[in-house]
Amino acid sequence: MQDALLALTRYWTERGAMVVQPFNTEVGAGTLNPATVLRVLGPEPWRVAYVEPSVRPDDARYGENPNRLQTHTQFQVILKPDPGNPQELYLGSLQALGIDVAAHDVRFVEDNWASPALGAWGLGWEVWLDGLEITQFTYFQQAGGQTLDPVSVEITYGVERIMMALQGVDHFKDIAYAPGISYGEAFGQAEYEMSRFYLDDADVETQRRLFEDYAAEARRLLDARLPVPAHIHVLKCSHTFNVLDARGAVSTTERAKAFARMRGLAREVAGLWSERRSELEHPLGTVPALPLAAAPTEFAAVDGTHPLLFEIGTEELPPHEVTRTAAAVERALTDKLAATRLGHGTVTTYATPRRVIAVVDAVEPVEPDAERTVRGPRASAAFDADGNPTKAAAGFARGQGVDPAELRRIDVDGVEYVGITRTDIGKGAVEVLSGVLGEVVAELRADKNMRWSDPKLSFTRPVRWLLALLGSTPVPVAVSALAAGTTTRVHRTAGDPVVAVSTADGYLDFLAGHGIVADQDKRRALVVSSAAELAVTVGGVIDGDSPLVDEITNLVEEPNALLGSFDARYLELPAEILTTVMRKHQRYLPVRDADGALLPHFVAVANGACDHDKVRAGNEAVLRARYEDASFFWRADLRTPPERMKEGIAKLAFEERLGSVAQRADRIAGVALVLGAAAGLSEEDSATLRAAAGLAKFDLGSQMVIELTSLAGTMAREYARRAGQPEAVAQALFDMELPRSGGGAVPTTVPGALLALADRFDLLVGLFAVGAKPTGSSDPFGLRRAGAGVVAILRAFPALAELTVPFGLSTAAEKVRAQGIAVDDAVLAEVAEFVKRRYEQVLLDAGVAHEQVAAVLPLADAPALADATVAELAGLTADPGFAGLVAALQRVRRIVPADTGAGYDPAALVEPAELELHQVFTKASAVGGTGLAGFVVAASPLTDPINTFFDAVLVMAPEPALRAARLGLLAAVRDWAAPVLDWQALGTTLEA
Amino acid sequence: MQDALLALTRYWTERGAMVVQPFNTEVGAGTLNPATVLRVLGPEPWRVAYVEPSVRPDDARYGENPNRLQTHTQFQVILKPDPGNPQELYLGSLQALGIDVAAHDVRFVEDNWASPALGAWGLGWEVWLDGLEITQFTYFQQAGGQTLDPVSVEITYGVERIMMALQGVDHFKDIAYAPGISYGEAFGQAEYEMSRFYLDDADVETQRRLFEDYAAEARRLLDARLPVPAHIHVLKCSHTFNVLDARGAVSTTERAKAFARMRGLAREVAGLWSERRSELEHPLGTVPALPLAAAPTEFAAVDGTHPLLFEIGTEELPPHEVTRTAAAVERALTDKLAATRLGHGTVTTYATPRRVIAVVDAVEPVEPDAERTVRGPRASAAFDADGNPTKAAAGFARGQGVDPAELRRIDVDGVEYVGITRTDIGKGAVEVLSGVLGEVVAELRADKNMRWSDPKLSFTRPVRWLLALLGSTPVPVAVSALAAGTTTRVHRTAGDPVVAVSTADGYLDFLAGHGIVADQDKRRALVVSSAAELAVTVGGVIDGDSPLVDEITNLVEEPNALLGSFDARYLELPAEILTTVMRKHQRYLPVRDADGALLPHFVAVANGACDHDKVRAGNEAVLRARYEDASFFWRADLRTPPERMKEGIAKLAFEERLGSVAQRADRIAGVALVLGAAAGLSEEDSATLRAAAGLAKFDLGSQMVIELTSLAGTMAREYARRAGQPEAVAQALFDMELPRSGGGAVPTTVPGALLALADRFDLLVGLFAVGAKPTGSSDPFGLRRAGAGVVAILRAFPALAELTVPFGLSTAAEKVRAQGIAVDDAVLAEVAEFVKRRYEQVLLDAGVAHEQVAAVLPLADAPALADATVAELAGLTADPGFAGLVAALQRVRRIVPADTGAGYDPAALVEPAELELHQVFTKASAVGGTGLAGFVVAASPLTDPINTFFDAVLVMAPEPALRAARLGLLAAVRDWAAPVLDWQALGTTLEA
Repeated sequence: MQDALLALTRYWTERGAMVVQPFNTEVGAGTLNPATVLRVLGPEPWRVAYVEPSVRPDDARYGENPNRLQTHTQFQVILKPDPGNPQELYLGSLQALGIDVAAHDVRFVEDNWASPALGAWGLGWEVWLDGLEITQFTYFQQAGGQTLDPVSVEITYGVERIMMALQGVDHFKDIAYAPGISYGEAFGQAEYEMSRFYLDDADVETQRRLFEDYAAEARRLLDARLPVPAHIHVLKCSHTFNVLDARGAVSTTERAKAFARMRGLAREVAGLWSERRSELEHPLGTVPALPLAAAPTEFAAVDGTHPLLFEIGTEELPPHEVTRTAAAVERALTDKLAATRLGHGTVTTYATPRRVIAVVDAVEPVEPDAERTVRGPRASAAFDADGNPTKAAAGFARGQGVDPAELRRIDVDGVEYVGITRTDIGKGAVEVLSGVLGEVVAELRADKNMRWSDPKLSFTRPVRWLLALLGSTPVPVAVSALAAGTTTRVHRTAGDPVVAVSTADGYLDFLAGHGIVADQDKRRALVVSSAAELAVTVGGVIDGDSPLVDEITNLVEEPNALLGSFDARYLELPAEILTTVMRKHQRYLPVRDADGALLPHFVAVANGACDHDKVRAGNEAVLRARYEDASFFWRADLRTPPERMKEGIAKLAFEERLGSVAQRADRIAGVALVLGAAAGLSEEDSATLRAAAGLAKFDLGSQMVIELTSLAGTMAREYARRAGQPEAVAQALFDMELPRSGGGAVPTTVPGALLALADRFDLLVGLFAVGAKPTGSSDPFGLRRAGAGVVAILRAFPALAELTVPFGLSTAAEKVRAQGIAVDDAVLAEVAEFVKRRYEQVLLDAGVAHEQVAAVLPLADAPALADATVAELAGLTADPGFAGLVAALQRVRRIVPADTGAGYDPAALVEPAELELHQVFTKASAVGGTGLAGFVVAASPLTDPINTFFDAVLVMAPEPALRAARLGLLAAVRDWAAPVLDWQALGTTLEA
Repeated sequence: MQDALLALTRYWTERGAMVVQPFNTEVGAGTLNPATVLRVLGPEPWRVAYVEPSVRPDDARYGENPNRLQTHTQFQVILKPDPGNPQELYLGSLQALGIDVAAHDVRFVEDNWASPALGAWGLGWEVWLDGLEITQFTYFQQAGGQTLDPVSVEITYGVERIMMALQGVDHFKDIAYAPGISYGEAFGQAEYEMSRFYLDDADVETQRRLFEDYAAEARRLLDARLPVPAHIHVLKCSHTFNVLDARGAVSTTERAKAFARMRGLAREVAGLWSERRSELEHPLGTVPALPLAAAPTEFAAVDGTHPLLFEIGTEELPPHEVTRTAAAVERALTDKLAATRLGHGTVTTYATPRRVIAVVDAVEPVEPDAERTVRGPRASAAFDADGNPTKAAAGFARGQGVDPAELRRIDVDGVEYVGITRTDIGKGAVEVLSGVLGEVVAELRADKNMRWSDPKLSFTRPVRWLLALLGSTPVPVAVSALAAGTTTRVHRTAGDPVVAVSTADGYLDFLAGHGIVADQDKRRALVVSSAAELAVTVGGVIDGDSPLVDEITNLVEEPNALLGSFDARYLELPAEILTTVMRKHQRYLPVRDADGALLPHFVAVANGACDHDKVRAGNEAVLRARYEDASFFWRADLRTPPERMKEGIAKLAFEERLGSVAQRADRIAGVALVLGAAAGLSEEDSATLRAAAGLAKFDLGSQMVIELTSLAGTMAREYARRAGQPEAVAQALFDMELPRSGGGAVPTTVPGALLALADRFDLLVGLFAVGAKPTGSSDPFGLRRAGAGVVAILRAFPALAELTVPFGLSTAAEKVRAQGIAVDDAVLAEVAEFVKRRYEQVLLDAGVAHEQVAAVLPLADAPALADATVAELAGLTADPGFAGLVAALQRVRRIVPADTGAGYDPAALVEPAELELHQVFTKASAVGGTGLAGFVVAASPLTDPINTFFDAVLVMAPEPALRAARLGLLAAVRDWAAPVLDWQALGTTLEA
């Protein structure tokens, strides 16, 4: 291992990195060394490499866990500015470590990084070596609350993991550290003893005092304008906090306060450091901005039509951005070409993680010329009595650079003006495309965007090259520092990773010749077919429809499926655990037999050619380690009864103002019981609900769920069953977490549904109350999903129609208020509206017409009821009688002022038409009817009397009493119909 | 610089060292990293190399001092066990750094290391590169109070210093740290800010709390049997203490308490670590002991006489041990040969730092045979009446393995025995020498001895080879793991550093041929002559008699003098400063002009051939840096008035129980004033004494003296003068520190003498009182020197004869007691006796006969008086009258029991002889006389009457009254003579 550290050090120093020493106070990661966290600030260049033993008290395991250490070794590299080829440099470093990157499957898998405590974030990847995460690679965007300019590239190697993979050992203790001495021999005792200290023996009171002392010292040093010692004290604070946390001594409130304090200090340190560097006039100089590419000035002329090939080369895009960017480029290109006069055929785009390709068929060689009329003054003002041009006309002509004699008369909407007609000479295709393509690149945007070395561009990942050919003519494109060329990049492990492209024709085949499948659909099909073929060999199948397949498709440029196996003994674990690990962590496709039972195999999809045996072995080892971990958690959890596990959630923070997870679980249980009472449950369901509510969220205290959060609910059911809980209780606990996503399965039991509702009502009310509602694309607590969940559950349980959304929300609000948190009624109204919007969206997504959706929205507080109404509406839309009724009711509504009450004195009515209406209404309203259909039956007799009433009666009679009676009658009709639907919203769509 | 660290890392890993990371809590030195301080304990092997940024808050200088940093970089290597050639390995590492060790002057200069706080010590060297200390090289003997077995070799490189030398820069900030970035650019801001923190801004109260918390946590962790985290907390304690110290916040008492606490914890950590490793069954295995060399069994026969050559090859001996070992070997060899029958000529020894050579001329080829008589029973008991052997004789014969018939008669002192005569066959010279030489090596001992890889040997430095030749016949010698061979080692930089030796003849010439001057006298002469020659070239001289020349002679095997220069502007500094730096730190010979004024030159003496220009440049740079430092201190000190400087000494610890230096200075002042009063000073001297006493020791608070302690007194005079103090006061402050060594100059003024006495009385009383008296070779406070100083001063100032040693000591005791420290009268008697022994030694060293010394010793409380008596004795020894008087007085003393009182009733006397004695004594004792001479004149008339008395009178008369009167008369004579001398001690040496 020490040779590896030396090799990395040598590699990076040879590339101009300075070497510093690990920091001499405990840090949790190399990032915290001032050589990173301070040096990435400000305009000075910095290129550094260092080893950093990183201390994470929480990971202490007495040296027993094969993959987890209280101190692990990071190798940290900072490249400031981004050198333009950091990924290539990084791959070179792997080769320096002796890793044959051509034989292995090395991939850059989206992984973004954010540390709110440091006011820092960045975008980047985790780097996979045959499925093993060996490095974190980040473009650092912000630190200490400051936007970084220039951006730094941060590369953090996990050295123990790399060593375990390289040496093929299963436990960190078995790593050969130095000749003749293993990691365990060298550091085993320290690992054990420090684990003891962090987990069992550190004195809590002492550590609390230390925390206070360090924080106070940091504060003083900031006031003394000494950022370096201040930073050291923030680090000491942070380590002490971690020790307290590992000792289980941090309450939710303390955690929130401590974080706020450290965050504040860290930001001040960053600010002060920047100021001081500025005062010192940036001793290391400043990074110059990359020069802009020269704007093209010459454009080749072409003959005839040609296809356009435009490739935007990027570093690995996040999978969902691959598809999204292809679509965006297609749209932008189409729109922008449409704004020119350049003739062209279809626009098609293709995308892989590293490129978006646009192909435009049959591009004309030039734009046609175009005539353009420029309007001057009115003709009447353009010529004087003598027919000579007036001053106005002369001025216009001069402005246009023509002789006044050239002015013509132009008719615009019947008014005569003078003006001139100009001919715009069509530009050559190359010139037109040059501009259009540049704009497409400049306007690229993603969900989350970042900066790199480019002075102007901003996108989800760096754009590194452009390729633009019209037929075989290069199209010069200059965007910021980028200039298009005639080369592309193929697999990084290819003999020559940069290849020349001579023509746009057959580019996809050209790429295929270099092992790149640019067409997403083809790539997807290839993933599915090759995986299925492999699965068959072990008598299994894979799920080709899984969203995972889409993700895999966008993680590779050339799918290269391989079948791996794992020890069948892991099949003793619940299948959800195994598949969750495969999917979420490893992007492996599970293999099942015909009955759906899991087989001890998986399909991994590597990128491009590789040594299958090596890559398989690597992936199998990773999965084994993960399953070993999972087994460890499983066994440990089974030793802990649910009741005790539940005690553990008191230590888990939920949200700083809303308290711990335990507090939230208590609120949920309380709300669920109120809902249950309101719903009038059976004795049996009541008992189940009470039992399940008492255990709500207990599995969040299990090691398994702490590790694999998506297994919440699943593990609750498993552990509850094994602890001897009734199946109904276990199922209710499972149901409670449903639905997990929009369109996901909903609870199947009433107690489960009530818990699930209570969960979501609490989440919505609590977070809205503390002001944490979703904004833009940010919805960290998944409130949109929670709102949609409420809707989905209530739709699925018409029997619970009593439980309206407002009722649920106000019940939840009571519990939140009981914790001393103010919940305004306005907030509840806002949440109700928020949920209503979710319901609206569901209906729209289901294809229900806008008007109908709007019409039933007043019923959305009880979505099952609204659903029924929607269904009835669907049956009525073709019914002309219904249309007449609707029109009549709408007419009533239009006429009666909103503030008119429904009471009237029938004795005041005089006209037959109004008496008729009164009688029919009295009868109809006495009958009533449930739902829309019932109402329609009851109300239909009113259609004619209403119409007659309006034809025959002057509503606004001069006599006040009469007028009042007439308006009151109409208002009564209106109010009777109102709860059924928003009749106005139906508009005139129904008129036959 | 980073390349250098990498080069060292690579070099040592290629030699099997493991690499660890710097420790992640602040340490003051690489030694404190558990990879050293814990791993050197116990039997496990360990070979490690690492960088250690070492934090010394006290060295913080805001980055302004060119050579001093709050964090400097150590490169630390531990070799456990000693590989047998660590020096050679180390030199290889210098070459790996690009240092041409053949061109430079690389030397191993004695420097031992001890850290009482760690319970640790070792012997070794500082390694010099052209006069610059670049490495500490230590054989670690003890750590945490435990004796180390095996011993570890610790090599600590001072990386910044090496870099400054290699790169030829004058300020650490100018070191090129990495390509394009200097040390200052990389770390300048941190250096400034951390200096601010350590010196100015760290919060004292907070740091005190941290210290307590860390110490308490260490205590708890020890109780939990977790040595690793306990050690970390001891380190945190230690660093916090250093911060407090740098902030000037540690009082003497606190320092003592803190050290005791840390020492105790550190020892417990070491003990616990050892226990735990043992419980873990020493995971790294145990170091096997080196096998013993096979004992020789065959010895070559030689013809004729040959010289014996015996060389003991060592690593660099401390200079004083070179001479001492040569003498010891000569003595041992002479004695041991004398115990054999092997004929041989003279035994001569020669020595250099790396070898002791014994040459024995004309060794006979074999021992002569020897006859040996074995005595049996008396002849009278050996034969029965028939002349047959008795049982006794038969038994004796059987025991001797001979036939009874072979028994002969032997006369012993006139008694006849039976016995046999045996012939001991003489052994061959080679066999005899083999044994003798082995014993000589096994019995080598020095002042301070150490262990290395050898399983049995112990000496001041490792013995690495033995060479033994009798003529050209190898003498096999086996001592422990060492076996003598026929090779020697020459300069390590020689093409072939190990050379074969074929014959003992002309070995010194042989060595001379390899550039080694083995004869110390020749080497010394060479040092003097070559240095003098060089000095002449700049019109100067050197002091060839200086003890420094002896030291230099023993620091090199081949003197290679070179003349260096320094900037004449440094001559503005007091010459003592410049010469002190040259001598003490650099072992350079100062060059003076004919008037004794210092010239801006020096002579350095390198070892062996080297590139003079490089070595000169290196030495000049070192001296420049040191003078730059000194100038800095000088200027800073001159800005501080003596009074304020004196305030600073309150912070300096003297001895933990005796308090601060300020307290000691106050005691000294008090004692001096009492002594002054007792001595009856002149008004002027009184005033001077008072003024000087008020400033006593003030210069210990100066930066110069803190740096160069031997300048105490010298700087006091300089600074006092420049602060406008009267010259007499300045001189008294200078005198106060005299004499600096045995035989050194004593004070020239009475006030100075009084202060000097007070200083030493206080030192003696204080340290004896707290039990810190010298033991064996250990005298850390220089009490022997202090005692000798008291004697020297009192001898030099006969006018102060009133001030007896007991008076001085009891005065000092009063002051010490005033501080609450018990001083037993027994202790004072012990100190007085201790001082008396010093006086005795002075006289003996001066050649005064033992008897005379003993005779005057009762007067030694006033050494000037005793001196006078010695002088008078010398004049009397040839005087027969004096001899008669002495004999008479001795006779009186012998006869009178010690408990007999001097009173007698003259009326009881009856005999004429006794009446005569009574009358003569009455007359003589009435006259009296001063000193011995006066006494002799007065007492001489008693000689005859005493002799007559004894001839004529029976002292022990039967009548009690008469007997009492006679004894009383004699006792009166005895008591009158007693104070003059110890007459008995003169023995019979004077009898003519």
